[in-house]
Parts: sequence; C-alpha cells; structure tokens
Amino acid sequence: MPDRRNPTACLLVIGNEVLSGRTQDANIRFLATRLGELGIPLCEVRVIPDVAETIIGTVNEVRARFDHVFTTGGIGPTHDDITSACVAAAFGVPCERHEEAWARLDRHYKPGEFNPARQRMATLPRGADLIDNPVSIAPGFTLGNVHVLAGVPRIMQAMFEGLSSRLAGGPPIVSRAVHASGVAEGRLAEGLAAIQARRPGIDLGSYPYYRATGGGVAIVAKGPDPAAVEAAIGAVTALMREVGAAPVQGEPPV
Amino acid sequence: MPDRRNPTACLLVIGNEVLSGRTQDANIRFLATRLGELGIPLCEVRVIPDVAETIIGTVNEVRARFDHVFTTGGIGPTHDDITSACVAAAFGVPCERHEEAWARLDRHYKPGEFNPARQRMATLPRGADLIDNPVSIAPGFTLGNVHVLAGVPRIMQAMFEGLSSRLAGGPPIVSRAVHASGVAEGRLAEGLAAIQARRPGIDLGSYPYYRATGGGVAIVAKGPDPAAVEAAIGAVTALMREVGAAPVQGEPPV
Repeated sequence: MPDRRNPTACLLVIGNEVLSGRTQDANIRFLATRLGELGIPLCEVRVIPDVAETIIGTVNEVRARFDHVFTTGGIGPTHDDITSACVAAAFGVPCERHEEAWARLDRHYKPGEFNPARQRMATLPRGADLIDNPVSIAPGFTLGNVHVLAGVPRIMQAMFEGLSSRLAGGPPIVSRAVHASGVAEGRLAEGLAAIQARRPGIDLGSYPYYRATGGGVAIVAKGPDPAAVEAAIGAVTALMREVGAAPVQGEPPV
Repeated sequence: MPDRRNPTACLLVIGNEVLSGRTQDANIRFLATRLGELGIPLCEVRVIPDVAETIIGTVNEVRARFDHVFTTGGIGPTHDDITSACVAAAFGVPCERHEEAWARLDRHYKPGEFNPARQRMATLPRGADLIDNPVSIAPGFTLGNVHVLAGVPRIMQAMFEGLSSRLAGGPPIVSRAVHASGVAEGRLAEGLAAIQARRPGIDLGSYPYYRATGGGVAIVAKGPDPAAVEAAIGAVTALMREVGAAPVQGEPPV
C-alpha cells in the first residue's frame, strides 16, 4: 500500500451501464496505471448507480477520506447525466451557467443547436475549474479535490492527460515482477510470507496465472523505493530457485 | 434502479492488482450480468486493497446495506490472501479448521503437499457454508449474507454457478435497447427526459457510441415489467423517427 508521502486517490465510476453488465468498464485500469505513475496511488474504486442520493452521499464520504477523488460518467446532456448537479449538492453550492464552458459549447454547435439539453453541459457547480475536452468540447471540472471526467474512455483519457500536470503527486510507485511456470502458489507461500514480513515498506503480491501452455505464479513487488523493490524481487527469485522453479524476470507473457 | 421486490447485491473486488492497474478486472461484468438475470441487481461495486482494516470495515458496512454481498479474491494460500480471516473478524467469529474443506484439500494434494500455507485455505470462519470449487478444489463459502468467491475468473464463475441455485432472486430485470447512428444525444435529450418522467418504473439510459464507421446513440430501457420496457422502447423509437433518425432495435453492432 502507498507510502505515507503519497497522496491517495479514489475513483467513482458513475453509471448504471457497468452495474447492469451492459458495459465492460474500461476506465479503472487506465486511471489506476496513470495515477500510480504520478505517485497518487488509487486506493479504492466504487461503481455506483445514477441515483442522486447515492452519488451525493458517496462523493461526500470519499472526498473526506482521500486526497483526490476522480469521477467518470454522467456529464452528458441527457436526463441520466446528473453528476454535475450531484457534485454541486455534495459541496452545497449552486449549479449555474459557467460562462467559459457556455462560450465553448456555443461556438461548437451550429446556430440553434445549442439547445436546453446541451446547455446543461455548461451548467456547473459554482467555483468549478474547467478540465479541457479536446475531443467533444463539453468540459469536465475540478471542484475542491473532486475531478469530474467524462465516461467515454477516449474522452476521459484526453481530459485526464490535460489535468495531470495540475496534480501534485508523491514518489512514483515502482513495480517489478518475477514469474515461474509450473510452480504452485502453495509451495512459495511460506517463504513469501517471510520475505514480506522482513520488508514492511514493500507490498508483495502473489498472482497465479493460467495459460494454454501451462500455468505458474507471478510475484509483484511494489513500493516507492526502487532499491527496496529490486531487493525484494531478488529475494523472491532466490526463493523460487530454492523450490526448484526457474524464475524469469518480469510478468508472464500474455 | 431495482424494483422494491428485488433483493439487492453489492460486489467487493478485493485485491491490490486491480487498484495498481496490473490486472484488468474481469469479474464485475460477469457478476453484474448473472445477478441481473437472477433478479438480484448489482447496486454497488467496491474495489478495495488487501488491507485488513479496510476489508473488515467495508464488509460490515455493505452487509448491513445490501441483501447480498459477493467478494472476489484473497482466498488463496499466500500471505496476501486475507479475505477469510477478515470476514471472520467482521462477523466476530473465530477462523478455524473447517473439517469438510480440510478433507477435500487433504484428498486433493499428494502426501506431504498439504502444507501449512495450503491449510490456510481450509481455515474458515465458524459457521461458513462451503461453495464448491470444481476447478481447483479450495472452496469459497457463505457466511450470513456474504458470499466469498475466488478471484481467478474461471474459478469464480464455476463457484457462482454452483451457488446460484441457493440464491432467491426477485423478478428478472428485463432490458431492451434501440439505437440510431448519426444522431447526437443532445437532440434526443429533451424527448427522452419526458419519456422517463412518464415512466417511473423504467430506468432509461442513454449511451453514445463511437465506431470506425461512425457514431450514434443507444437507448436502453430496464425494469422488472417486460410490457412496460417494450412500451418505453416503442416511445423512444418514435422519438428517434421524429428527429429524423433511423432507429434499429437492439444494441449497436460491436
């Protein structure tokens, strides 16, 4: 888990489509990876429905517990897009016409097409700082420590990259892996526990894998100190050899 | 959102590997789909780390709020597999040798290979009812309204199918879609809001899509009453024609 020097992040995936199984989430992994690189480790994800009471309560709970909260989804023009209004309610501020967002959307649409539904996308919590949307114009925003992003992966990713320079991270979380085929987790477990016990600054994970060509175990060491991570992987590599396995540095091939 | 007659479900994905971005989650969509089919709609998902305090607190929070809680991950033999111990702690019961689980694993391993690390997989909260694991033997379990499943998708799915006959669901949630290419969400939004407002028993979702061949919008209607779902899709189809689009029943092609 993250070092004390690292700010923490929570992600709220807002939308019924993930909870119903209609849509395979494609945002968690991207944000998990990029936030780790920025030294703002993702510590919790919640997938919640388009229900105002749930969104408002969850935003207020997690913005108090984590340094940064990211939300995806619910900022389009339709009736089920209620994220901006809910974030405003969570902060107790009005949701009102945002002049810069309004101007961007007004320029983007043909005359007469910037209709009341689309005007909702320029109706934001008072005090919101815009997050640029280079794909489809309608912006996200930051309010306090809550960063509101689109749900469509391509748009969310573009928004995040623009936002990322404004996020102050801690030391990047370094990750190294070693794997061995044909070895069972249960044969490494005792030795791994001993290695983990000696290295409290390292997070050691054990992940069995299954491939058509056979299975094995991958061990991942993570932490903010690259030398400590390398040392842990060295110890795991030696342990694998001790039980007769043939360790290979890195993740197993896909 | 679910009808009042439907029991509710929450999923806890336990494991650092999803939060670090190492692993793309492959369990949420399966469980969301299957639970919807069983009439036990998935109402929230949380992805949480291998941290005992977090797991215990989260289990206790969500088992009080939802009718069923499913967990995936953390029931293997290694030091980072702490789900069973944490569920025991959440319920305030001891974690102890489970005779039937012990017997199954003892039969499964060769003499001398059922070592202390593997014995942890037969050390379960007192009162646990086993969930069979036809793939790799080590069972999951149900304690109260908490169902503890493996994290490896193939094993999790086999466990869930065995468990599902023990789950009493409500009416299945019926879902129908209609889509139209070349139309923007913002042109349908006002009409959709009116359709939704007239049909409180229906959950109407609007999902833009992007394909190499062009984009469009899919509208999904969900609810426990098939006739009401059909009627809502009929109204959306008429709306699409009104704005000059060519509606096609079903989801857009992938």
